Amino acid sequence: MSSLLSALSGHRPDRLPVWFMRQAGRSLPEYKEARKGTTILEACLKPDLAAEITLQPVRRHGVDAAIFFSDIMTPLVLAGVDVDIVAGVGPVIENPVRSAADVDRLVSHEPGDAQAITDAVKLVVAELGDETPLIGFAGAPFTLAAYLVEGCGSRDHLAARSMMHADPESWRRLLDWCADISGRFLTTQVDAGARAVQLFDSWAGSLTRVDYVASVAPHSAKALSAVEGRVPRIHFGTGTRHLLTDMAALGVEAMGVDYRTPLDEAAWLLPEIPLQGNIDPALLSAGWEPLSRHAADVVERGKAAPAHIVNLGHGVPPTTDPEVLTDLVAFLHEL
Amino acid sequence: MSSLLSALSGHRPDRLPVWFMRQAGRSLPEYKEARKGTTILEACLKPDLAAEITLQPVRRHGVDAAIFFSDIMTPLVLAGVDVDIVAGVGPVIENPVRSAADVDRLVSHEPGDAQAITDAVKLVVAELGDETPLIGFAGAPFTLAAYLVEGCGSRDHLAARSMMHADPESWRRLLDWCADISGRFLTTQVDAGARAVQLFDSWAGSLTRVDYVASVAPHSAKALSAVEGRVPRIHFGTGTRHLLTDMAALGVEAMGVDYRTPLDEAAWLLPEIPLQGNIDPALLSAGWEPLSRHAADVVERGKAAPAHIVNLGHGVPPTTDPEVLTDLVAFLHEL
Repeated sequence: MSSLLSALSGHRPDRLPVWFMRQAGRSLPEYKEARKGTTILEACLKPDLAAEITLQPVRRHGVDAAIFFSDIMTPLVLAGVDVDIVAGVGPVIENPVRSAADVDRLVSHEPGDAQAITDAVKLVVAELGDETPLIGFAGAPFTLAAYLVEGCGSRDHLAARSMMHADPESWRRLLDWCADISGRFLTTQVDAGARAVQLFDSWAGSLTRVDYVASVAPHSAKALSAVEGRVPRIHFGTGTRHLLTDMAALGVEAMGVDYRTPLDEAAWLLPEIPLQGNIDPALLSAGWEPLSRHAADVVERGKAAPAHIVNLGHGVPPTTDPEVLTDLVAFLHEL
Repeated sequence: MSSLLSALSGHRPDRLPVWFMRQAGRSLPEYKEARKGTTILEACLKPDLAAEITLQPVRRHGVDAAIFFSDIMTPLVLAGVDVDIVAGVGPVIENPVRSAADVDRLVSHEPGDAQAITDAVKLVVAELGDETPLIGFAGAPFTLAAYLVEGCGSRDHLAARSMMHADPESWRRLLDWCADISGRFLTTQVDAGARAVQLFDSWAGSLTRVDYVASVAPHSAKALSAVEGRVPRIHFGTGTRHLLTDMAALGVEAMGVDYRTPLDEAAWLLPEIPLQGNIDPALLSAGWEPLSRHAADVVERGKAAPAHIVNLGHGVPPTTDPEVLTDLVAFLHEL
């Protein structure tokens, strides 16, 4: 059994499994080369290219899992929502969802044809073989909704969180649709051979605990239920120390932990579940000595959890020197 | 004694004191009118205009304190650092501080002439009289340093946090200089008549607790010590639930609490100190019924603290309807 799947089932394999959020894509020169002349959303929908980009970091770094190269917005694109990814800005939604009528229009969109995703996943899985599992991924309903309502990334997601209180019924319908889209995207990847999934609730940290539990968690649970019992599910968000127990309580098989919460503290909050994380991405450019010391500390604290998958506490920054990541994997495998 | 100063000294005045972070400025039509043809940094350095803008929300909303209208970048501008405020972007530093040599160059800057600040504060205090105190403010050393190193606002302040580990000695010198600048800015305002201060560590939430305590807190303490024993000091940052006890432990007289941490939970963490906050700014545009219900809940939870200054849990959003704020002050004064 692969070290990742072993850890996800609660065991401690001989070697710590390691992968990095955002390992595929922006930090790799071979990615920049492969994507030339193609927008990121086009790349996500070209099976050969998406598969190649997914595989690049596995070949280069020797990580213990591939994460499917796609974008949080991809399932919205498949559903026919008008999304663009603007360099330096991120996703931009042509017509933000601000009213009950906007929600009506949005939820009339069908999930769309995901054949390109199926094909890409199959190509990846065929090349990876049994040794290295592919992790499928999707954005969680709140994170999708935050983009849809704001029209772009934002700091506190004020418009989305305002709609939650101003029009709870439209909010519920919006999140329910997002949960379907998200769950469907996970299912497509698992059907095609992904052996684990991670649900990213990137923006959930802006929520109060009361709002998360009342107006978000049930929809995340719905998205996650789409692949329940089929593959282990990892759940992750940044700035979510105050939501960690509620996010784990959705019944996932592992929790990803942001770099701000030490793993021994996370293990104290969540004593029964494998933890994933949480090397501070800021250390990747701080030099080898501080980085290796920090990585060893993360591994040491991770011993408080029943099982530990080593990862960053947020995505690989675009400016990261890829050689540092390769060295880090080797270092972690020796610990 | 004003209700604000009473609460800051640990009492519960007959009427809850209320003010709003960012009450002066961007949400008010009279501000937009007054600032026409002037950049924000120019406005901060024109005593008549800065005073007028500071007073506008006191006249309009009937809040129990003025907060000096300025920018976190103002003390850097006074010190001759090349800063611009770009609409829709925020502060932009022409030459980001990335190396030991950059730090050398920066720390050679003297604090500069703050007469414009002195004059503006005196104008405000003369008009406010004894009834309504003026709160002075400054950005905390880490927040100043994060702008200086990144060159602009950013999500996780990776470059700044990387420098902290890569070159601790340059970091220490940078933060020490920022602490001087920050403390001096507070002193100027107190000398001219401000009767309380708030230190904003807007970006501290990106730090781990270990990093905050080791590499940031001593510098914040230095900035705060500049006005120790002269006026009560409020300390605030967003996303700082994990740092709340450490921020309070710097010996401040009150803690501002972000909207994500319920005040009764904050009071449990900090049982001995007056708390300020923490109405969720997202509720300001959610309609009166959800807003008033939420505001009443905040006040109810605030009863767990020895004293409570009502505020938002983050700044007034630019799109806020000013009438909602006026109504909210009246509502809170009736509770």
